[in-house]
Amino acid sequence: MSNTHWTLAARAAKMNPSVIREILKVTERPGIISFAGGLPSSKTFPVAEFEAACAKVLRDDPAGALQYASSEGYAPLREQVAAMLSEQAAAQGQHWDVNPGNVLITTGSQQGLDLVAKVLLDKGSRALVESPTYLGAVMAFVPMEPDVVSVASHDEGIDVDDLRAKAQGHDARFLYVLPNFQNPTGRTMSEAGRAALSATAADLGLPLMEDNPYGDLWFDTPPPPSLTARNPDGGIYLGSFSKVLAPGLRMGFIVAPSAVYPKLLQAKQAADLHSPGFNQRLIYEVSQDGFLARHVPTIRALYKSQRDAMLHALAQHFPDAATQPEQSLTWNSPAGGMFLWARLPVGMNAVDLLPHAVDKGVAFVPGAPFYASEPDARSIRLSFVTPSVEEIHRGVAALAAAIKEQQGR
Amino acid sequence: MSNTHWTLAARAAKMNPSVIREILKVTERPGIISFAGGLPSSKTFPVAEFEAACAKVLRDDPAGALQYASSEGYAPLREQVAAMLSEQAAAQGQHWDVNPGNVLITTGSQQGLDLVAKVLLDKGSRALVESPTYLGAVMAFVPMEPDVVSVASHDEGIDVDDLRAKAQGHDARFLYVLPNFQNPTGRTMSEAGRAALSATAADLGLPLMEDNPYGDLWFDTPPPPSLTARNPDGGIYLGSFSKVLAPGLRMGFIVAPSAVYPKLLQAKQAADLHSPGFNQRLIYEVSQDGFLARHVPTIRALYKSQRDAMLHALAQHFPDAATQPEQSLTWNSPAGGMFLWARLPVGMNAVDLLPHAVDKGVAFVPGAPFYASEPDARSIRLSFVTPSVEEIHRGVAALAAAIKEQQGR
Repeated sequence: MSNTHWTLAARAAKMNPSVIREILKVTERPGIISFAGGLPSSKTFPVAEFEAACAKVLRDDPAGALQYASSEGYAPLREQVAAMLSEQAAAQGQHWDVNPGNVLITTGSQQGLDLVAKVLLDKGSRALVESPTYLGAVMAFVPMEPDVVSVASHDEGIDVDDLRAKAQGHDARFLYVLPNFQNPTGRTMSEAGRAALSATAADLGLPLMEDNPYGDLWFDTPPPPSLTARNPDGGIYLGSFSKVLAPGLRMGFIVAPSAVYPKLLQAKQAADLHSPGFNQRLIYEVSQDGFLARHVPTIRALYKSQRDAMLHALAQHFPDAATQPEQSLTWNSPAGGMFLWARLPVGMNAVDLLPHAVDKGVAFVPGAPFYASEPDARSIRLSFVTPSVEEIHRGVAALAAAIKEQQGR
Repeated sequence: MSNTHWTLAARAAKMNPSVIREILKVTERPGIISFAGGLPSSKTFPVAEFEAACAKVLRDDPAGALQYASSEGYAPLREQVAAMLSEQAAAQGQHWDVNPGNVLITTGSQQGLDLVAKVLLDKGSRALVESPTYLGAVMAFVPMEPDVVSVASHDEGIDVDDLRAKAQGHDARFLYVLPNFQNPTGRTMSEAGRAALSATAADLGLPLMEDNPYGDLWFDTPPPPSLTARNPDGGIYLGSFSKVLAPGLRMGFIVAPSAVYPKLLQAKQAADLHSPGFNQRLIYEVSQDGFLARHVPTIRALYKSQRDAMLHALAQHFPDAATQPEQSLTWNSPAGGMFLWARLPVGMNAVDLLPHAVDKGVAFVPGAPFYASEPDARSIRLSFVTPSVEEIHRGVAALAAAIKEQQGR
């Protein structure tokens, strides 16, 4: 038949395949030790508990679990989320009385980013982000055609002067932050950093979008209290069950103030009617009887031991990091989560190094794609959660060999 | 803390709660017989098969089912969808060789509508729809700010002259059609109507977006072959497992030509990374060994008997429909699906009638909200699939009483 004219929306030209997914294709050779993944360890998935929950849900309420349901989400799960956040805040001396009516269950927290973008971003408005930031958030914002603008960030948090300069008079709709064990850097905003950011945002009237997929995965002490808990009407909180239970059920949630909740709900309804009712009940059932309080510490312990292995291997293979930091790999020591952030010696480029590292048998993710502007070409992200301790040692050795070889040229 | 300035995107002002969901709140009184729902009968959900599938998936491949996965979808399910559509087309004498590489698994077919809108609709471009049309599609299109324009439609299909007039020179991006047992009218495009539409669309170079959630639910003979099968490069096909297995897993799919597939995939990745891998495996497992070929006929038989009961009750309570159609309720006889479309006597208004009908103990959905323009205020949608045969008889009697009482005023 004749040629159909497919006219794509202007926004489609701005949508691109994830640079990182493309990079990862290089690393998918068998036998490669991968520090490149962004996946939780599948060893942590509570398979037996999910099996029991499937049986219980399909026995007790099959019609409820398998039928169409409300766009807001399964009421008991919304109540559980509200109670969990309120309790966490109280335990940290914050008063954050989360109302289940402000909780919207999403199909993974990635969907939360998509809904927020739809409701808050106009073409040409500003979405402020950390530098570097989570790439999936930028991917979710881009279809709404905002200007995604980096705010200078450091180990303690956000540079509030730069925030002020980039927000005021620029139609900035929000600042997106991942304060706990950030993807990609693994870093955590300090209490002072949070207090400064919270005060500045309130002063600017700037909404904060707080993404917290990793907050429960602390190693020694919980991170400082949430930004949203400090000013619940001034922010949107995005949560996820992907890192504490399993990502394959795609279950996350938004807590949003009443100023935006109804529009987020309408966007949710238009996007997929509702999140799978079966999955919502599985998450709810598995979380009963204090299971999370028993389960999450086992994930913390595992990831901490893996982080320790990586820190140990790095110290062993890069003994000059402290004395000659410009000639060595340097790295941070994340207090939780899944990622460690490192920097190659002066003059090296992570994208160029990657194929040589893969030849030696190890993969990582170059850090540059995580910057909305002014990428640091020397930065790399190393995930420590999926390889074994033995693989971590071999992988770091291979990385060291690849770097040494490149330095020798 | 100080007041946060929430600036909503311009599109948010155009997003509204589903009129129908609002209407349905009136009908949620206990004891009301509801013809208003849009839900499949939960009696048809294969609960035992889902239980077995849960156990198998969590035993055989728990890490695969519970881990992050590819945005395209679970490969065996994509292959199954491609084979199923190719076989269906072949059985109807069409050659449609669906490549699994053109199948994208979505979180319900509603998400397919959202992704298509993102990729194809600019602000001010045209989305053409049937008159009336599925409200959820309009809800999915509206956030991208197109002009949603109705094309005159009739029992055989689309008025191709009106289509030509509304497409040519108007930046029309596609025509959205639901050719089989449409929601809300229950009507089905004839072979002649499809041939005419397909030829006109090809001549115009206009993409067709074919939504087919109900196509398998035919009562006596399958509907004529798919529009997309006639010109696969000229259309996008949206399918769903909601009506043949269960909606609560939110599983649907898109088949899209290579001209748009990569952008739909990127939109999918940004929207929720991927559809739940666990659910995809459940759908795949439950569909094995010819289960759908045994199961779907039981749904057809159930819904057919329910439709027959409704037709019988309508004929009994509105005996003057043929002789005095303007003074009576009139209705069509759908050849499949879940809905029957009826028209109130001259001078009556469905929205006004609804509370009186609810007082008599029966609920329906007024047809007006399903029209993107020029609503027919006398039209009503009646679902025959969830009430029992006995309830159908009582409900139609109550509807007749409400109409008679209103006519007597």
